Amino acid sequence: MPTTVINVDLDDQRSYPIYIGENILADTTIKQYIHGQQVCIVSNETIAPLYLETLKTALGAGYQIDTVILPDGEAYKTTDTLGLVYDCLLTKKHNRTTTLIALGGGVVGDITGFAAASYQRGVNFIQVPTTLLSQVDSSVGGKTGVNHPLGKNMIGAFYQPQAVIIDTQVLNTLPPREISAGIAEVIKYGLIIDADFYQWLEENMPALFSLEPAVVNYAIARSCECKAYVVGQDEKEQGLRAILNFGHTFGHAIEAHQGYGQWLHGEAVGTGMAIAAALSLRLGTISETGLKKLRELLLAAHLPITIPANMTTDDFFEKMAVDKKVSDGKLRFILLDAIGKASIVESPDIDQVKAAITDCA
Amino acid sequence: MPTTVINVDLDDQRSYPIYIGENILADTTIKQYIHGQQVCIVSNETIAPLYLETLKTALGAGYQIDTVILPDGEAYKTTDTLGLVYDCLLTKKHNRTTTLIALGGGVVGDITGFAAASYQRGVNFIQVPTTLLSQVDSSVGGKTGVNHPLGKNMIGAFYQPQAVIIDTQVLNTLPPREISAGIAEVIKYGLIIDADFYQWLEENMPALFSLEPAVVNYAIARSCECKAYVVGQDEKEQGLRAILNFGHTFGHAIEAHQGYGQWLHGEAVGTGMAIAAALSLRLGTISETGLKKLRELLLAAHLPITIPANMTTDDFFEKMAVDKKVSDGKLRFILLDAIGKASIVESPDIDQVKAAITDCA
Repeated sequence: MPTTVINVDLDDQRSYPIYIGENILADTTIKQYIHGQQVCIVSNETIAPLYLETLKTALGAGYQIDTVILPDGEAYKTTDTLGLVYDCLLTKKHNRTTTLIALGGGVVGDITGFAAASYQRGVNFIQVPTTLLSQVDSSVGGKTGVNHPLGKNMIGAFYQPQAVIIDTQVLNTLPPREISAGIAEVIKYGLIIDADFYQWLEENMPALFSLEPAVVNYAIARSCECKAYVVGQDEKEQGLRAILNFGHTFGHAIEAHQGYGQWLHGEAVGTGMAIAAALSLRLGTISETGLKKLRELLLAAHLPITIPANMTTDDFFEKMAVDKKVSDGKLRFILLDAIGKASIVESPDIDQVKAAITDCA
Repeated sequence: MPTTVINVDLDDQRSYPIYIGENILADTTIKQYIHGQQVCIVSNETIAPLYLETLKTALGAGYQIDTVILPDGEAYKTTDTLGLVYDCLLTKKHNRTTTLIALGGGVVGDITGFAAASYQRGVNFIQVPTTLLSQVDSSVGGKTGVNHPLGKNMIGAFYQPQAVIIDTQVLNTLPPREISAGIAEVIKYGLIIDADFYQWLEENMPALFSLEPAVVNYAIARSCECKAYVVGQDEKEQGLRAILNFGHTFGHAIEAHQGYGQWLHGEAVGTGMAIAAALSLRLGTISETGLKKLRELLLAAHLPITIPANMTTDDFFEKMAVDKKVSDGKLRFILLDAIGKASIVESPDIDQVKAAITDCA
């Protein structure tokens, strides 16, 4: 299958390409985006044994290549782990022309991106996402950062990579649970902005879950196109971009309450989308059939659609109060105007929000 | 004396004003730059007792105002101290519309600016610099960040404030050593970009050091104009902006070797400028008279012009190797083409660099 290239259009010479293809990790696509002599590859204990040598071989000789291998998991998306990257860069005397390469999932990408944003006030970086979730979501769009004990992604920057290299072959080593988590974000794009894609997903979910190459390639490419379109319209989330957070306010509350890493991000977003859709139904914008079909699609993707048994509506509101989506004390939600279209709703009726959460208990 | 307003011209609606005046900390100038309901004032143990209440009174009621009081000094310009700001923001549930106000010198401004750059991927902030050094240099131009044990300002961001509020009255409580440190940067602007201003400084140094109001106001305003011009041309230091680092590569080496906070930044820059000028003389771009008059001007500002007794040329090179001014292994220096004009020189003769350091021993 030929490599697909999607462009993220941004101003000020910051546009960049997303390459999607089989085994492109092993070819030299990446080299044109390295401008200096120094490279620092950041990966984790799970991914490095599988793909680090492939990447280093693709880079070849001619660079100073240093590596930082992080522990695996959302629990390590912290300022302490970020410090390990800084320590390597400084110990190995990396200068402003260095290039950081994130080889891993969303945690590696977010930490590496923020390290690149903040090391010497900004150096080049390249995303090589190795999970479906990071391929369709976190590697594109320039959101980088780490968690704080009091909130997810509370410390970070908008900082764009030079390029995103998506090798679909690496998905074959992913646990099924992580495939499902990635599909949650794929479904999200259909729900918020692309009814045709949503319908295509209803027809192709079994093939997507079982990683049929043509289906996976199309799902990733269409997801990246949707995200690139939204980010190109509103890079810093002044308006439209907020729709990408569909299901995330509820999802983040679940993640924070359960402890990061207990629920995968995509799993929490899956249930979060079920709650947001239930709220949309209560506010009259989608039909009962629409909600029922969404739940079926989430189940077909092997995603959870009910909230954790130990979590009350009050638990949700406590966690949501500190979420970034809160604007000056008002709770904002992304809700569906229809299947395939989302918009921002300020301060919906609190009782309806509580009822929608209970709908998913 | 009327308030002076200087504009920093940047693209993308990020231009901002610098207000310079006596007692403007006590008036309501600042309020128009606060857009949300939440304010977090970051200050330090020295400045807060002097001016925090004045600022809070000027803000008046109607805001949630939280304060973070940091320990005073360059030694605390660390990720740990930065964490105190994040902790306050999260504990007090500050959201994306919050405004951070930096009330203090360069350390407070740099930490607060980076906290603003990175909290929830960027919130508003206002600089209220209270040292001469920060008024003429670090509060303008958007360089923010913290130190790493292995290098100064190694972690940070380019991030512009909404406004800079410079109250010249606060200089009256500054120790004379800090006045001298600030004057080092004032002299720098004359040296690198404004021969007329340099000559004015030669004529007015005693009045400036003794803080005659009209002289201080002009020196600050002209310095801010010089800096705003350079930053407006080259915000992210792709080229021209590097001339603002005149004397800083040597100066940072002194600070790092002596331990941050032992030499004030401006003092190290003073000696660094003496070394850079000595190197310029050796390379034939300025005259012996030019160097002699610069040394006299630095001495008239009560600045050191000789390197620390315990520091060798090798110590300088070791510290300079990790400095941000290093580009892919090459040492870059900012040198004088003449008094009033500076440019970047790549890899000058190492023996000449060593000799210039020894000239200042």
